[in-house]
Amino acid sequence: MFASTPKPPYYAVIFTSVRSGDSGYAETSERMNELARQQPGFLGIESARGDDGVGITVSYWSDLESIRAWKANAEHRIAQQRGKSEWYSDYVTRVCRVEYDYER
Amino acid sequence: MFASTPKPPYYAVIFTSVRSGDSGYAETSERMNELARQQPGFLGIESARGDDGVGITVSYWSDLESIRAWKANAEHRIAQQRGKSEWYSDYVTRVCRVEYDYER
Repeated sequence: MFASTPKPPYYAVIFTSVRSGDSGYAETSERMNELARQQPGFLGIESARGDDGVGITVSYWSDLESIRAWKANAEHRIAQQRGKSEWYSDYVTRVCRVEYDYER
Repeated sequence: MFASTPKPPYYAVIFTSVRSGDSGYAETSERMNELARQQPGFLGIESARGDDGVGITVSYWSDLESIRAWKANAEHRIAQQRGKSEWYSDYVTRVCRVEYDYER
């Protein structure tokens, strides 16, 4: 459930979104998760979406270059385009360097 | 709904959790939101929790010192203690520097 991340520094992509459409979303979302896991530098992913349609997905990566390569992935680019036109009324993406972390 | 953050760099605290108890949670959560907004360096907050109990809250701050001061706030420390003993079966906190961001 939680991403099993290494000792910092590593990188996080925070994707906050509001869902507006459903058609084909679940399949593509599952496929993108599967595809992300196969990418170099992928460390893990955490996701939550409430009944109000607001969702936050955080994916973790070993370095910025892996994040750039994933964003440019051809199949992922098609999904990003559909997200923009069909699935999200709004979103923000923030790319961060994790400086320190702690657990329960 | 989305945090209105400035041009990077700024800082993010990603808090991923699993809820286990409810008693007093809503009041404290609302109070902590209100109190956080009054702290120096606070920029905004985004939150989502699904029906499976997994939640992600991201708060945004101007600098690491503001994050440390908020963690050490007396009223917040009591809430953190209750979170640990009553409200969350598990959680991870990650403190990050936002390197770049982009919107829809």
